[in-house]
Amino acid sequence: MSVQLQIEATRGAARAGKLITPHGEVETPVFMPVGTVGSVKGISQDALEELGVEILLGNTYHLYLRPGMETVRKMGGLHRFMSWDRAILTDSGGFQVFSLNELRKVSEEGAAFRSHLDGSAHFLSPEKSMEIQIGLGADIIMAFDECTEYPADGARMRSSMEMTLRWAERCKRYFEAHKQEVPWGSRQPSAISRQEERVVGGRWSVASAGGADRGPLTTDQSSTQALFGIVQGGMDRELRRESAERTVEIGFPGYAIGGLSVGEPRELTREVVLSTLEHLPAEKPRYLMGVGTPEEIAQYAQAGVDMMDCVLPTRAARHGLLFTSEGKVSIKQARYAQDEGPLDPACECRVCARYSRAYLRHLYAANELLAQVLNTVHNLHYYLATMRTVRAWIRAGS
Amino acid sequence: MSVQLQIEATRGAARAGKLITPHGEVETPVFMPVGTVGSVKGISQDALEELGVEILLGNTYHLYLRPGMETVRKMGGLHRFMSWDRAILTDSGGFQVFSLNELRKVSEEGAAFRSHLDGSAHFLSPEKSMEIQIGLGADIIMAFDECTEYPADGARMRSSMEMTLRWAERCKRYFEAHKQEVPWGSRQPSAISRQEERVVGGRWSVASAGGADRGPLTTDQSSTQALFGIVQGGMDRELRRESAERTVEIGFPGYAIGGLSVGEPRELTREVVLSTLEHLPAEKPRYLMGVGTPEEIAQYAQAGVDMMDCVLPTRAARHGLLFTSEGKVSIKQARYAQDEGPLDPACECRVCARYSRAYLRHLYAANELLAQVLNTVHNLHYYLATMRTVRAWIRAGS
Repeated sequence: MSVQLQIEATRGAARAGKLITPHGEVETPVFMPVGTVGSVKGISQDALEELGVEILLGNTYHLYLRPGMETVRKMGGLHRFMSWDRAILTDSGGFQVFSLNELRKVSEEGAAFRSHLDGSAHFLSPEKSMEIQIGLGADIIMAFDECTEYPADGARMRSSMEMTLRWAERCKRYFEAHKQEVPWGSRQPSAISRQEERVVGGRWSVASAGGADRGPLTTDQSSTQALFGIVQGGMDRELRRESAERTVEIGFPGYAIGGLSVGEPRELTREVVLSTLEHLPAEKPRYLMGVGTPEEIAQYAQAGVDMMDCVLPTRAARHGLLFTSEGKVSIKQARYAQDEGPLDPACECRVCARYSRAYLRHLYAANELLAQVLNTVHNLHYYLATMRTVRAWIRAGS
Repeated sequence: MSVQLQIEATRGAARAGKLITPHGEVETPVFMPVGTVGSVKGISQDALEELGVEILLGNTYHLYLRPGMETVRKMGGLHRFMSWDRAILTDSGGFQVFSLNELRKVSEEGAAFRSHLDGSAHFLSPEKSMEIQIGLGADIIMAFDECTEYPADGARMRSSMEMTLRWAERCKRYFEAHKQEVPWGSRQPSAISRQEERVVGGRWSVASAGGADRGPLTTDQSSTQALFGIVQGGMDRELRRESAERTVEIGFPGYAIGGLSVGEPRELTREVVLSTLEHLPAEKPRYLMGVGTPEEIAQYAQAGVDMMDCVLPTRAARHGLLFTSEGKVSIKQARYAQDEGPLDPACECRVCARYSRAYLRHLYAANELLAQVLNTVHNLHYYLATMRTVRAWIRAGS
C-alpha cells in the first residue's frame, strides 16, 4: 500500500475526498505549503499543525545539497529528521536544476549541474533522483522529468516529452527495485521518542498537542512510498494528451501536470491544465505542480485537481504581500501606519485575531523577524482556508 | 497606584514575591526579555505568553525612531500597539544614545545625537525622555541617566553621577506633572477588541489562550505608570553609595542599578552590584540593568535583585549560541550534524521536546528563518526556567 485517493463527493469535474498516505490522511483538494530545505520558512511544525497542514512539500534539490540525503536517511528520513509525522511529498529535483542552474547540461543520461551554494559539480539522473527521494523517505515522490522551457517549438516539445517518458520508465524501474530501502523502519529512537519516553512512559507518540491524535510516527512496515508520474508536452494540447496517455500506460498511483507556470500567459496555463485533466484517470490523485494564486488554486480544484503546491503564499509573505478577502495588501505602504484594523476582517487566523495593520506595517518597516513569521502564518492560513471553502463547496453540491 | 512589590519569601538577601503592575502581576525575581522595537525578535506574543513571560522590555530609543512615539501614542500605547496586555518596561533611551552614536553631544540640557537609521538629528533630554515614555505607556519607565563610560577617572565618575542626579529630579518633576497623559484610557477599540466582539460578543478580553485569564486590556483609570530612578557612580563603591542614597532621597517606587556591563571585568560588576544593593530600600523593587548570563542572573537574584533584562538570550540565539543544562552549545558545529539527541535533555521547552540537535544544526547551517525562531524559544525558556528555579529555591528556604 502506498497512497490511495478516496473520493467522497463530486461536483461537476471537482472531487473532494481523502488521500490516504503512510503518514496520515489528507483532505483533498489540498494545498501543500513548500518546506524547501526541511522547514516552511519561519514556521514551526507545531504552528503548521495548528494551521491544519496535512501534507507539505520538500525540495529534493535543496535537501540533496544541504543537509544531504545520507544525513537525512541515517536520521530515519525526512519525517523524523524534521519531526513531522504528517505526509510529505518531494519533487524530483529537476525543476531546480533547470531553474537555478545556468550551466546545466542535459543528456539522455540525466542532468549535470553545479550547486548554487558552492559551485560543486553534481549529476542527477532518473535513478539518482529516485535514490535520493527514497533516502529522504517522503510519502509521495516524483518522477525525474525535464521541465520543457517556454516558449519551445514543436520538435523541441516532442523530443523533451519523449525523454521525460523514457525517464519515467527508468524511474519506475529503479523505484520498484529499491522501494524497500525507504528508511522508515530502520531508524533508532531519536530526540522525540526519548523525550516522550520520559514524559509518557514509552508510548511512542508525538509530543505536541496537534500531533497527539494523529497516530504514531512509526509507520506500517508494509507501507511504501508512492511514485507519481509527470505529464509534460509543453503548451501543445495534442502532446499533452499523448504524454498523459503514455504516462498512464507506464502506470503510477498518481499523476502530476508539470511544465506549467514557466512564463506562459495565465490563460494558456488554464487551457493546458483543463485539456490535460481530461486524459488523467478519475480514480487517481491529480497534482498540478507550482500553481498558483488563491483564485487559481480554487479554480483548478473546481476543475478536478486534487493537489497543488506553490511558494507564492510563503515567499510573498516574506516580501510583505498579503492575501486577504478584500484583495492583496502590500503591508509596507505608509497608509497602514496608523490603521488599527485587522489585516483581514474576515480572517480567523491568529494574526488577524490579535494584531493591527499598523503593527504589521511597523514590523515590516523595521525589518523585524516577526514580520516574516506573522505574514507567513496569515498567508498560509488564507490558502488553507481557500481550499477548505472549495472542499465544502464540493460536498455541498454533491 | 503605579507598581508595588509584595515580598512573600526571603532567603538570605534574596526575596521572592510579586510585582503588581497596572498590566498584571509579575513573579519576582524576574528576567525580562528584550523586545527592542516592539517585538521580541522572531517570537509572537502568543509564544511569549506560552513561555510564561509576564513582563518585557521595550527600547525607547528604537521605538522613538520607529514607528515613532506619536504613532504608538495614537494607537493607545505600546501594550495596545503590539497587542501585549501584560507588563512592559521601557528604558530611557540614554543607553542607546551613548552606545549607538559616535557623534552624540552631551550637555547639562541633554544629549544631541544622530539616528543610526538615517542620520537625522535628534535631542533627548530628561523631559523629552519622559514625554516619549509616557506616550509609549509602559507600566514602568526609567529616568534619563548618563551611563558613565568605563574606564573613567574619579572626577568624571562624580560629575557624571551628579548630572544623573539632577536629571533624575527633572525626570520626576516632568513625570509628576504629566503622568495623567498616559494613553491607556484614550484609545479607541482596535483590531483586537473588534475581533473579540465578533467572537465573544463584546467581552473585552484577549483572544489568545494564554492571555484569556489575565484580565482585560483596559486598565484601571486611576492607575499610572511608575518611574524608576537609576543609580550610577561608575565603579566607585563610595560614589555608588552616595548615588543610591541621593536617588532614594528624591524618591521613586523602584530603583535600578545602571552603568554596568559596559566593559568592566565580571568580578568588578559583581562587587559594585553587591555593594550598591546594600543602600537600596528593602521594600522597593531593585532592577539590575543589562545583566547577564544564566549564572549571573541566578547569582544576582540570590543576592536580592528583583528584575533583570539582557539581550544575551535572544541575540545569542540568533547567532546559534544556546544555553543548556550541560553548558553552552554552538549549534553550528559539524559535530551536531547527525546528533539525534535533544538540544538539552533536561529542558522542557517545545524545541527540546520536538527537535534533534541535527535538525537545529541543519536549520542554522542552511540559514533558515526557523533556526532563529527555535533557538530564541529555547534560550528564553532557559532563562525563564532559571528564574523559576531561583524563585522556588527562595521559597523553599524561607
